Amino acid sequence: MEEPKSYHMTPEEFRRHGRAVVDWVADYMERVESLPVLSRVRPGEVRSMLPSDPPEHGEPFEAVLADVERVILPGITHWQSPNFFAFFPANASGPSILGELLSAGLGVQGMLWATSPACTELETHVLDWMAQMTELPSAFRSTGTGGGAIQDSASGAALCALVAARERATASASNERGCDGRLTAYASTQAHSSIEKAVKLAGLGRANLRLIAADERFAMRPEALEEAIARDAAAGLTPCFVAATVGTTSSNGMDPLPAIGEICKRRGLWLHVDGAMAGTAALCPEFRPLFRGLELADSYCFNPHKWMFTNFDCDCFYVADRRALITALSILPEYLRNAATESGAVIDYRDWQVSLGRRFRALKLWFVIRHYGVEGLRHHVRRHVALAQEFAGWVREEPRFELAVEPPLNLVCFRHRGGDAANQALLDALNESGALYLTHAKLDGKLTLRMSIGQTHTGRRHVEAAWGRIRRAADELGRS
Amino acid sequence: MEEPKSYHMTPEEFRRHGRAVVDWVADYMERVESLPVLSRVRPGEVRSMLPSDPPEHGEPFEAVLADVERVILPGITHWQSPNFFAFFPANASGPSILGELLSAGLGVQGMLWATSPACTELETHVLDWMAQMTELPSAFRSTGTGGGAIQDSASGAALCALVAARERATASASNERGCDGRLTAYASTQAHSSIEKAVKLAGLGRANLRLIAADERFAMRPEALEEAIARDAAAGLTPCFVAATVGTTSSNGMDPLPAIGEICKRRGLWLHVDGAMAGTAALCPEFRPLFRGLELADSYCFNPHKWMFTNFDCDCFYVADRRALITALSILPEYLRNAATESGAVIDYRDWQVSLGRRFRALKLWFVIRHYGVEGLRHHVRRHVALAQEFAGWVREEPRFELAVEPPLNLVCFRHRGGDAANQALLDALNESGALYLTHAKLDGKLTLRMSIGQTHTGRRHVEAAWGRIRRAADELGRS
Repeated sequence: MEEPKSYHMTPEEFRRHGRAVVDWVADYMERVESLPVLSRVRPGEVRSMLPSDPPEHGEPFEAVLADVERVILPGITHWQSPNFFAFFPANASGPSILGELLSAGLGVQGMLWATSPACTELETHVLDWMAQMTELPSAFRSTGTGGGAIQDSASGAALCALVAARERATASASNERGCDGRLTAYASTQAHSSIEKAVKLAGLGRANLRLIAADERFAMRPEALEEAIARDAAAGLTPCFVAATVGTTSSNGMDPLPAIGEICKRRGLWLHVDGAMAGTAALCPEFRPLFRGLELADSYCFNPHKWMFTNFDCDCFYVADRRALITALSILPEYLRNAATESGAVIDYRDWQVSLGRRFRALKLWFVIRHYGVEGLRHHVRRHVALAQEFAGWVREEPRFELAVEPPLNLVCFRHRGGDAANQALLDALNESGALYLTHAKLDGKLTLRMSIGQTHTGRRHVEAAWGRIRRAADELGRS
Repeated sequence: MEEPKSYHMTPEEFRRHGRAVVDWVADYMERVESLPVLSRVRPGEVRSMLPSDPPEHGEPFEAVLADVERVILPGITHWQSPNFFAFFPANASGPSILGELLSAGLGVQGMLWATSPACTELETHVLDWMAQMTELPSAFRSTGTGGGAIQDSASGAALCALVAARERATASASNERGCDGRLTAYASTQAHSSIEKAVKLAGLGRANLRLIAADERFAMRPEALEEAIARDAAAGLTPCFVAATVGTTSSNGMDPLPAIGEICKRRGLWLHVDGAMAGTAALCPEFRPLFRGLELADSYCFNPHKWMFTNFDCDCFYVADRRALITALSILPEYLRNAATESGAVIDYRDWQVSLGRRFRALKLWFVIRHYGVEGLRHHVRRHVALAQEFAGWVREEPRFELAVEPPLNLVCFRHRGGDAANQALLDALNESGALYLTHAKLDGKLTLRMSIGQTHTGRRHVEAAWGRIRRAADELGRS
């Protein structure tokens, strides 16, 4: 019997349209530098260009691609522009994009080993590679007591770590009977918002998250941590979790892991280390001192989707004791039972994350590592750090500006000496120009500009041009 | 000053390698039917083909692609084979894959409206389209009190819904002071494991999830739900959340939403409806009666990444009251403050999900809707349902087999009359043949085979061939 009409795109059509999209992306790579970095559309403008009703009949692919150009592109803030210095980078690269394409084309689910063994095994393997490349403690490797998995983000990683900590502290009673409002968690005042979010999601309560004071370099004060834990323990509460950061978002502050880790070990708290952006620096031996003490951590994450040329989402999440994680997150309904799982010889990553389903994200990370080699990745990380240090030097020599803190890596926090209003005016003028995009933080209560250098193609001329524009904008400020 | 050496893939190289990957995927589409559906590798076999050390130097892209063929492909279980009848489908299509490619190429972050307005506005728009296409209650549209967002999965959606329910029931006290072990949640014995996982993650405790008895068609018994809620309320507990399912994983059971919704409204519980797979059926007016009562729900999700030709991840999550969700999930650190957010004129999707970061997933959904048109999507959904119904007819006429339940849509649950051992032997023989892939469930305590019809290219000849093999395997069973 003949199949009735099909609306599917045929493989031949896919070849043709696929080439058009590949070309579109290649063209985008070539021209992105010329586009205003921060989108200039007003709220509602993109939607106003879209038909209010969905199409009843299919449309030619060419029409869709034309609308990408007409409707979507003006509404894009160009994270892949070499003039993007905002937030932290979310850099990407050709091999990563093609790994994502291949993953979409294979369309497999990696929830169980059995649902696509290569999806699980390549992930385990590449995360062991990453542990080796960044010289992580041996417990974090699959050959040790722990291992790694790819999470969507550092937020997801923090939530999983916190839940594992919660269960370890309560001997699984929280999973069984619920939280009791007496578990406490700790992070510095500089920690990422994802820690607060995890504390709320996991039912600990924001009031049970202690924000520990930071020192003049925005690093957690371990003596303040110890005091807070002791106070809570004396009050009959159950301290269970500390989140330390290697490279905070506001200032790249570096929490002292050895001192924090010692406290956690002594008092039996779970130490999670968030190295979301800075973790990539551990590729280079000269930056590894920033990660000393990581052997005291129970979990750790960093994001190749920030600074390692791997498009979002790709967070490498490691635990030192995989049983603690799996105990906290496992579920096993009948419809997922299978011989491989029951043999115990395989990893089922559904028990390492919030969701059941998962894409084949290891492909893009594998493509990136093989394309660049460790040598190439190191080269570009060093280059970004060198550019940031050079930029910091220019700020030091310019009397109207000051550094908010000495930059340890590739984020330079600086400000105009004219106060918050001057810095806000500078920020607005620079971002409105379209020539670059910077964001801000508050450090010591003062509005501070953040020059975050990590986009794949950012080179010296982009950083130089940015500094020229910043100085010219300061000149304008003086005149107005 | 000249830039030093670069290891990046140039746009011209990207064009060339991109064509090779597009061709690889097109070739894969053409040959996937000829590959054994369930991978035959043994645990560790994929890893054994990978070098133990990461490459120090970059490798040619051609070498990587050759390893995809040599190392990865044998370890793939082919979810995109038309002979894949396991679990629920995770179907994909050309336009969706190209939408994912474009999203990776643009590489934007959609955490805030300001970080790429088109990413947020296209998502809002396409989710309104989906609400219109499936005739969802008006409160779920962005023009109403609620709205939609794309989640990674139904697991993520359930967690967000549960946390919103928890906060509504406790006037935000759980977020503030933590859970108190007295909140209770409800789902049927047939609900997906993601509900139990959410209850554990959110700190309610598994013992506070009541699994409500199902009737002979595997639908939740509303009178049992009411009794359980009343019992808990009388015991001084705080019933807060009911998860109902349209199309359970084991059997496609359909919970009676009008009765459940009435109970939830009367008693002030949050009703979340999980239509992960079956939700796509609402594209067709004839299947919409299955969704009656949805206007009583506080939240709802379904997955175009299951049955609507959109590669994972793409879960459409809707809430009737967006304030309840945002109140539960919002965080606003200084470094994310911006004028657009503070104007209140825009949506910031970071407050609709667990993670902060998010990819531009609306692109692939937009591409799919525009490629197929509503007409094309309806056509293929109807075709899958018709094939399943035809298959069920064959089972009915075959004396050695029986239906476990009448199939409402595209999942047929059936079994050999010879008991569990016979069905296990059948399942193993069929899956080992490589010609098709089926999974199982336990229904009424009996091992049951699931014929789940929804892969993009599954046509009558695949279903016929599967039935032929099933009968021949039963013949073999008789002889052995």
